[in-house]
Amino acid sequence: MSAVKGQRIQGVLSPVVTPFRDDLSPDSERFLRHCRWLLSQNVGLAVFGTNSEANSLSADERIELLDRLIAAGLDPDRMMPGTGCCALTDTVRLTAHAMKAGCAGVLMLPPFYYKGVSDEGLFRSFAEVIERVGDRRLRVYLYHIPPVAQVPITLPLIERLLKAFPDNVAGIKDSGGDWANTKAVLDAFGHSGFDVFPGSETFLLAGMRAGGAGCISATANVNPGPIARLHATWQAPDADQQQQRLDTVRAIMQGFVMIPALKAAIAHWGRDPGWAAVRPPLVALTAAQARDLVGKLQAVAFQMPGL
Amino acid sequence: MSAVKGQRIQGVLSPVVTPFRDDLSPDSERFLRHCRWLLSQNVGLAVFGTNSEANSLSADERIELLDRLIAAGLDPDRMMPGTGCCALTDTVRLTAHAMKAGCAGVLMLPPFYYKGVSDEGLFRSFAEVIERVGDRRLRVYLYHIPPVAQVPITLPLIERLLKAFPDNVAGIKDSGGDWANTKAVLDAFGHSGFDVFPGSETFLLAGMRAGGAGCISATANVNPGPIARLHATWQAPDADQQQQRLDTVRAIMQGFVMIPALKAAIAHWGRDPGWAAVRPPLVALTAAQARDLVGKLQAVAFQMPGL
Repeated sequence: MSAVKGQRIQGVLSPVVTPFRDDLSPDSERFLRHCRWLLSQNVGLAVFGTNSEANSLSADERIELLDRLIAAGLDPDRMMPGTGCCALTDTVRLTAHAMKAGCAGVLMLPPFYYKGVSDEGLFRSFAEVIERVGDRRLRVYLYHIPPVAQVPITLPLIERLLKAFPDNVAGIKDSGGDWANTKAVLDAFGHSGFDVFPGSETFLLAGMRAGGAGCISATANVNPGPIARLHATWQAPDADQQQQRLDTVRAIMQGFVMIPALKAAIAHWGRDPGWAAVRPPLVALTAAQARDLVGKLQAVAFQMPGL
Repeated sequence: MSAVKGQRIQGVLSPVVTPFRDDLSPDSERFLRHCRWLLSQNVGLAVFGTNSEANSLSADERIELLDRLIAAGLDPDRMMPGTGCCALTDTVRLTAHAMKAGCAGVLMLPPFYYKGVSDEGLFRSFAEVIERVGDRRLRVYLYHIPPVAQVPITLPLIERLLKAFPDNVAGIKDSGGDWANTKAVLDAFGHSGFDVFPGSETFLLAGMRAGGAGCISATANVNPGPIARLHATWQAPDADQQQQRLDTVRAIMQGFVMIPALKAAIAHWGRDPGWAAVRPPLVALTAAQARDLVGKLQAVAFQMPGL
């Protein structure tokens, strides 16, 4: 999918995994190579998502990595960096930087340290960021991931944000894993240009049939081509079979801790063992786990062409 | 309590609430005044804790506030700043800065974005920070607050950290609200110089009787003198009555959202309405809620002498 200036970002995006050097510093060259490969597979760059270990990176580290992609000529119209932090000032800084870089939008976690906060408090959080960045071109994609953030984005909150900031509140990534919630968001807001991205390709076909915009999925780091193909051909007669094949790979990945498993697969198929490194508190797969993962993927003829 | 150079910090500490100006920037002058008042009440400064809204501050904002206290001549031997962030690099930076400032120790949250992480991953997180800071004088107080961070510090993790870093792992703040856990930690490690601070004065007397080091409590922001007095006189005949009076104030505060309630009380008794401001996602008490809080505290003859 090519990007059209000013058109909203759509389709399949990957929360790009972040490679680390032996000293655990972000490896911008491996990162750039992986981003180029994803773009070549028609997958956009939701850099600095949950599966990017973005919350294990400082704001400066995120800024440096994004600048490296831009400097290398990658198209910011294909980028939706994660910018939502615990601290208001960090979120404002990262969002303003992404805007300045020309990114298609930003994926914004709610502030996630304090639990049981009110929708009023969350509304003010998002409102402060939007008002401080102060740019009508800003497109915010709300990031609903209650299993990890533990702070949900509710339907009443979406409604209030859309009413207050119709130019800026562009959509949502729903990583709740609950299709009923995704469907409720689609039914309530999908008709008004609010773009709904399920957080897994498991819901890609169902999402497209219900008016969704694509998906933003961890597994798009390793299986980008087939996922992007289903998005492009979701009305084709073989769409359900395509979905089944995607689900098979997804189920294998979900049998392991996702982030180390993604990196182990890239390390294996990219013949680059250094890719396996993760930052604490995550732990890389053991050699035995990695062999188990690779064996199970090989058994379903999994490939990473061109990596 | 006066500080003795090189002696471990003990007694009652307050996670100092952070005042904000109208534009939500940290108000270093109000902060300094409140810190001075707490010290005058024999309460130490656990700045940048949960109740300080520290996770709503950027690393730069924390550094500037700490520098302001040091520049004003406040004694770093009475300080235990919170330095644990989601990002390894932020935690290392804040911890090294606190060490350089001469702080008695640091209170370290585990990285708290990823949930369900292993003790192995948490061990590596703390180990990386301790090794990167690389100073035998560093004293780390582990911060166990599962209701908020959702990432616990288990007994096996403490044991492993103590074994690997006996000079650096100095104690724990247990904000789990579960006395059985605090007691288990005291029984397992209290005899070996590991300082256990319950996270509420509710457990101050029980903690002292079981070999605890004091407490680190939100309510010490508003009721510091009486809490510090119980710590100093816990073996006195009226200790149980003192504990009951502390519990009465604590129970009133817990009837409201704690952080806005602390600030509302300081705004009222300090005759300084600007103190009430909080950063999103928190929301200040309404005027009616603040009146309710003040009325209930007045009904038990609550005071903030010298504020």
